[in-house]
Amino acid sequence: MAYIGVIGSGSCGAEIGQLAYRVGEEIARRGAVLVCGGKGGGMEYACRGNAEAGGVSLGILPGLARNEANPHVTYALTTGLGELRNFLVVRCSDALISVAGEHGTLSEMAIALKEGKRVVALHPPYPLAGLVVASTAREAVEKVLL
Amino acid sequence: MAYIGVIGSGSCGAEIGQLAYRVGEEIARRGAVLVCGGKGGGMEYACRGNAEAGGVSLGILPGLARNEANPHVTYALTTGLGELRNFLVVRCSDALISVAGEHGTLSEMAIALKEGKRVVALHPPYPLAGLVVASTAREAVEKVLL
Amino acid sequence: MAYIGVIGSGSCGAEIGQLAYRVGEEIARRGAVLVCGGKGGGMEYACRGNAEAGGVSLGILPGLARNEANPHVTYALTTGLGELRNFLVVRCSDALISVAGEHGTLSEMAIALKEGKRVVALHPPYPLAGLVVASTAREAVEKVLL
Amino acid sequence: MAYIGVIGSGSCGAEIGQLAYRVGEEIARRGAVLVCGGKGGGMEYACRGNAEAGGVSLGILPGLARNEANPHVTYALTTGLGELRNFLVVRCSDALISVAGEHGTLSEMAIALKEGKRVVALHPPYPLAGLVVASTAREAVEKVLL
Repeated sequence: MAYIGVIGSGSCGAEIGQLAYRVGEEIARRGAVLVCGGKGGGMEYACRGNAEAGGVSLGILPGLARNEANPHVTYALTTGLGELRNFLVVRCSDALISVAGEHGTLSEMAIALKEGKRVVALHPPYPLAGLVVASTAREAVEKVLL
Repeated sequence: MAYIGVIGSGSCGAEIGQLAYRVGEEIARRGAVLVCGGKGGGMEYACRGNAEAGGVSLGILPGLARNEANPHVTYALTTGLGELRNFLVVRCSDALISVAGEHGTLSEMAIALKEGKRVVALHPPYPLAGLVVASTAREAVEKVLL
Repeated sequence: MAYIGVIGSGSCGAEIGQLAYRVGEEIARRGAVLVCGGKGGGMEYACRGNAEAGGVSLGILPGLARNEANPHVTYALTTGLGELRNFLVVRCSDALISVAGEHGTLSEMAIALKEGKRVVALHPPYPLAGLVVASTAREAVEKVLL
Repeated sequence: MAYIGVIGSGSCGAEIGQLAYRVGEEIARRGAVLVCGGKGGGMEYACRGNAEAGGVSLGILPGLARNEANPHVTYALTTGLGELRNFLVVRCSDALISVAGEHGTLSEMAIALKEGKRVVALHPPYPLAGLVVASTAREAVEKVLL
């Protein structure tokens, strides 16, 4: 069973949201577990796509309140670590897919690459050395599960 | 959905193991999620009891290898934090049950009490102020879910 | 250069405070660095004794504000980790001295013993297996530097 | 007393090294404390410049062995957190200066910006939104202390 991290901004528009939704859905279809930061934006779209396709997601939250998780997270882990929980999202993932994203996402991409993990990027905010770029949700999931 | 931490030594005899097994089983019967350190001994017995009763367990591992989890963990989270992951077991739990245990368990009990969480103890290694003591698995789970 | 952790309650009476003060002083006299949680109570007395004897202390704070450190800390490290910073106090210390203490201190003692570090205790709250007990500040520092 | 983080690659050439050296030196001249990851490359050059100008540096190490610090670190903190210690470098710094750098540095820059801290960059690997760019060590230290 693979654990696939999905990282992206805590707020996003409809187009990026739809992309994240389909990434979550595709992860469920392949029988992988979705790992994320458990909050809104891209994370919420991905968890929703995952849940609606029957998948399981783990949301690693920055705070101490379980109800800060978006409603589509299957299991919510409260850490109280703030943004430092980004590291745990990376540590708990075998490989990661980024969907757009800003500084928080960038920190996760950089750490994942530094720790030698595969990162497949949809609309990466910066062309980091070592990223695998994809243009559709299906392509991203195929490439991350290679 | 309640998240109940089960803490105890990474190695234990058959009697303590059986107690941990029944704690895990009882947690599953009540529909709670079992959170633990994911390794052997009491943790493994608890996860096994939980799994055999249809429950779900989250194993928060000290290392980076998913396969260091015991085979009864439902979802294994790799942290690379070593014993520091004990804190995450506490942070991710709404309340905890300790089954016997040594120094690692004691650190978890102390932090949980410090953070104001209910800790129900079966065979506590030391009579910490604030512990709720129980003598059977069923009593422990009843008291932890109060 | 040895790094000696001093752990104890965030609030204490005059007698325990005086003991912590002398532990800090003695650490300075031996040329060791004092590591602590940086806040009040026993930590503050120890840092004050240390500073007044010309020593250097590192205060590893739970929060994000440098000014939550007591005024006798030489260098204050802000972590934002809450009680989880207790682990860092242990990790940064070669060996530790506990002065009385409650649950937070106990968690540090237990983790230190679990990680194989020497812990010398003055008025330990519980008789943990593996503790080295001392009855004066000088004896504690002598035993911790062995 | 300001705490200035200096981040950069664990290996670097002579030109970047010289730049890091002068950043460390300038931090000492201004009476600030230098915070870094404590290892080689840019970190070592910065600590050396700092030490030779009479400054104090705190090296927050990834591992558990004090002697993995470069020889110019004043106080070495062992964490055992691996690359996760990058977060602590950011948390312990009031503001940061990056000198070139790769993925590890990038993760620190991104987290610092995400947490609202000023980051002054010398030869940034990517033009992150929010970075303040400088071209000399003196300019970087002046801008970081604003």
